[in-house]
Amino acid sequence: MTKVDKQVRSDIEIAQASEMLPISDIVKKLQLSDGEWEPFGRYKAKLSLCVMERLKDRPNGKIILVTAINPTPAGEGKSTVTVGLGQALNKLNKQAVIALREPSLGPTMGIKGGAAGGGYSQVVPMEDINLHFTGDIHAITSAHNALAALIDNHLHQGNKLNIDPRRIVWKRVLDMNDRALREVVIGLGGPKQGVPRESGFDITVASEIMAILCLALDLTDLKERLSRVVVGYTYENHPVTVKDLQAEGALTLLLKEALKPNLVQTLENTPAIIHGGPFANIAHGCNSVIATKMAAKLGDFVVTEAGFGADLGAEKFLDIKTRAGNIEPSLVVIVATIRALKMHGGVPKDQLKQENLSALEFGLANLHKHVETIKAFGLPHVVAINRFMNDTEAEISLLTRWCANQGINVELADVWANGGEGGKRLAERVVTEITKKPNHFNPIYSLNDSLKTKIKKIATIVYGATDVSFSTEAERQIVQFETLGWGKYPICMAKTPYSLSDDPARLGRPEKFTLSIRELKPSIGAGFIVVLTGNVLTMPGLPENPAALRMDVDSDGKAVGLF
Amino acid sequence: MTKVDKQVRSDIEIAQASEMLPISDIVKKLQLSDGEWEPFGRYKAKLSLCVMERLKDRPNGKIILVTAINPTPAGEGKSTVTVGLGQALNKLNKQAVIALREPSLGPTMGIKGGAAGGGYSQVVPMEDINLHFTGDIHAITSAHNALAALIDNHLHQGNKLNIDPRRIVWKRVLDMNDRALREVVIGLGGPKQGVPRESGFDITVASEIMAILCLALDLTDLKERLSRVVVGYTYENHPVTVKDLQAEGALTLLLKEALKPNLVQTLENTPAIIHGGPFANIAHGCNSVIATKMAAKLGDFVVTEAGFGADLGAEKFLDIKTRAGNIEPSLVVIVATIRALKMHGGVPKDQLKQENLSALEFGLANLHKHVETIKAFGLPHVVAINRFMNDTEAEISLLTRWCANQGINVELADVWANGGEGGKRLAERVVTEITKKPNHFNPIYSLNDSLKTKIKKIATIVYGATDVSFSTEAERQIVQFETLGWGKYPICMAKTPYSLSDDPARLGRPEKFTLSIRELKPSIGAGFIVVLTGNVLTMPGLPENPAALRMDVDSDGKAVGLF
Repeated sequence: MTKVDKQVRSDIEIAQASEMLPISDIVKKLQLSDGEWEPFGRYKAKLSLCVMERLKDRPNGKIILVTAINPTPAGEGKSTVTVGLGQALNKLNKQAVIALREPSLGPTMGIKGGAAGGGYSQVVPMEDINLHFTGDIHAITSAHNALAALIDNHLHQGNKLNIDPRRIVWKRVLDMNDRALREVVIGLGGPKQGVPRESGFDITVASEIMAILCLALDLTDLKERLSRVVVGYTYENHPVTVKDLQAEGALTLLLKEALKPNLVQTLENTPAIIHGGPFANIAHGCNSVIATKMAAKLGDFVVTEAGFGADLGAEKFLDIKTRAGNIEPSLVVIVATIRALKMHGGVPKDQLKQENLSALEFGLANLHKHVETIKAFGLPHVVAINRFMNDTEAEISLLTRWCANQGINVELADVWANGGEGGKRLAERVVTEITKKPNHFNPIYSLNDSLKTKIKKIATIVYGATDVSFSTEAERQIVQFETLGWGKYPICMAKTPYSLSDDPARLGRPEKFTLSIRELKPSIGAGFIVVLTGNVLTMPGLPENPAALRMDVDSDGKAVGLF
Repeated sequence: MTKVDKQVRSDIEIAQASEMLPISDIVKKLQLSDGEWEPFGRYKAKLSLCVMERLKDRPNGKIILVTAINPTPAGEGKSTVTVGLGQALNKLNKQAVIALREPSLGPTMGIKGGAAGGGYSQVVPMEDINLHFTGDIHAITSAHNALAALIDNHLHQGNKLNIDPRRIVWKRVLDMNDRALREVVIGLGGPKQGVPRESGFDITVASEIMAILCLALDLTDLKERLSRVVVGYTYENHPVTVKDLQAEGALTLLLKEALKPNLVQTLENTPAIIHGGPFANIAHGCNSVIATKMAAKLGDFVVTEAGFGADLGAEKFLDIKTRAGNIEPSLVVIVATIRALKMHGGVPKDQLKQENLSALEFGLANLHKHVETIKAFGLPHVVAINRFMNDTEAEISLLTRWCANQGINVELADVWANGGEGGKRLAERVVTEITKKPNHFNPIYSLNDSLKTKIKKIATIVYGATDVSFSTEAERQIVQFETLGWGKYPICMAKTPYSLSDDPARLGRPEKFTLSIRELKPSIGAGFIVVLTGNVLTMPGLPENPAALRMDVDSDGKAVGLF
């Protein structure tokens, strides 16, 4: 079914060969007026937040969240399905707008390709989106590091706030995979060069400012959130905030353009708003609230996604992002592939091409748990099977029969090879399920629950854990945080994405496990408490043969070897 | 002459109140075709390098370099005169295009305001230009740090090139004033976190990549220059280059948009190309060769500038940039103020408002030396006196009589208060001097001169030194560099800008001094040898009360307290 002439083309070849419409044409489709957008080159635009004011009384479009089973090395293609579904809805003459995260530049220098979909379901201009795009991430790097410089300058200039240099939690960031910066000593060189102390660098997308930008409603809310950020603690262990440093105005100024969402298009000219891209472990892993809300004002259907599998991405979308943005989701699409389900059923990566019905059946337990989770949130679902060439008829048939038996809605999606055309049945099913009956969406926990109760509800209802254990440090922090008034915030769980449990090796549907909580981290500006089950790497490293060494640009300025 | 109602308005108030034309109108003035530019918002554009190909046979416009006396805390207003002169040429119905450096974001967070002119001679949109602009500097930060990450990754992955970690000279950069990063230890945390070593951060504009971008002719030349960059030395002390690391393709890819010059306008809608902004001490301190050459293809007159005074900026423009870009300068404008000349004559800053004819006369010696230097380069000159309110008639009269006696061309410029109108006489004089007779431009030294001879020629002819002394280290390096084949490069002198000598306290026209050379630094990608007479700070710090603490943005997204 995947045609041979299509197979030989790489994602970048398909993207570079596509005929993009001028972004002004996409703007026209969305009926935006002249003052509501600004061009960034011929094929990108920034949208003004005043769109929201003009359309405040227009009913919101239906929001479709695309999530997935627990990711495996086999690949699921969540972004590809998101883009393909948006294109397919357009083919059904629905006004669909896609909302996606913007990719980080650092990892493209390492192993990873772009985060812009694949095959005939991509957003374009792909090179721009994956390189500097409209500079949002650079602006976050600037704002984050301006704050860091102000903190160290405060120490150097007399430290009026009595900040304990050993308790500063605000590191610096770069949008780069640079392991040598994970742990550093700064301020060396004598009394004119600052105060020596231990610190480190994260990748920019792990900055709390990225999470803040993605949860802020407008400039005022952005500044308010920035002012609440805790940068460290005094010698008496009192939190020190951005407001104490009087830095919120400058940081907001540095971010004022980055707060505006970016408009691009898919290969089939479906409008796509790409804005913000926080980590999905120490942050909530969704594109900005502003992008999703604006998409809902401009489209009748919004297709958006969240990082990792449904246990992390969807849970955070539904428990954190919907509350921050007062967003009403209509339906969740859960992406799976037969390959990945077989891996969850125990098949090693190099044997995925062989038919294996028993492994597939075993692996379906993972999918089943995520469907249960979405039902627990009170939302309708459709499982989208992202079709791969080697999927056999017997496997597909087993899968569809099994879904029918379990009362699970399922559709095949062939959007990589066939774009929107390959996603029509999925799109029809999504529309049917949304229109069938009103949903009864409710978050998994109440904000009034204690921090421990919130954590336990996520662990048991979403992950299927039997119990939760807390380290001594975590127990101490829970008391401290609730004393500081931070008990009211939602939880942002940092757990391995590869398993429903906190052990990455336990694929499928682990049972009878206890989730171990190691440590908590306040993200008071973002407005959530990060709960760590293990060590999370917030600064990736480069591999032995980095992708960067194969990259080039020809004399016409065209990217070579980018993907 | 400066009106009261104008005096009370700050630069940012004047800029924000200005009526900008859409950038497409400025593009039309320059008769660019659709494929030759891309909009970046409504008031900025990037210009394609294909403009140069189309206009390759058009005669070049006359290039006017604006330089200054040695800078003093009194202020000279070189950018203001550059912008004002461009506006004035337009008022004389000349097609003038201004070419300027783009300002660094870091220092705006500290003490310094923007680098976009002042009063009624500014480039706009001033906020954008002084914040992230079109992202060029961010792209340089990314490329520079990608290279740094590749170097440390090379060490971590087995160090096939046998790089000595103690001899790595490629640091990291941020566009931030962050003194605590000047000296750091990186790679801490054990065998999974890289190789521990000493390093540091510079401000991005001090990156050799900034100098490279500003001297490159096109993408091919950019890649060639990047491949030559020396990042460190092996254990056997052999240079290790970017080419050895195979990183030039990725770096070029990261810089391909940044290489395109940026078009904006002045308050009077004169086209201004703002592109690149290297340091004027460890680099050459001029906007990009591409910007200057493109301005010369698009205008009949180009007004451009170079950092610091004529001893540094003009010398480097004329000895380095003209050679790299095959640029023919037509005339040099030397900016001075009566205030600054009085400081060179010994008046402290708090007494500059009082008339002081003898100090003025004494200070004129500084101006005189710079005029001699421009004559030594074989170029015509006009001295522009940037008028200030407190200049007295007696002072102006003394100055003009003195210039007449010395055969120095001089004109008053009142461009801060009156824009182009206030620079008409200066513009007329500049045009007259250019058209009067052909110039006999020649650099001060030949590339075939030895490194020592080049240094001596600059020191004696440009600075007025009697002799040059070399440290033992410098002597050793000169031998090493010439052995490595680096003797053919021009010199980029890193000397205090405040004095013609290497002692910042010696104002006016120092005589009978020996210039002390401490150390050399190869910038083989940029294509020059940096010669240091003292310590140069390449990472500024923030002051006790950083400007950042007064910055804000109102709810309409307008910058507050930026200047």
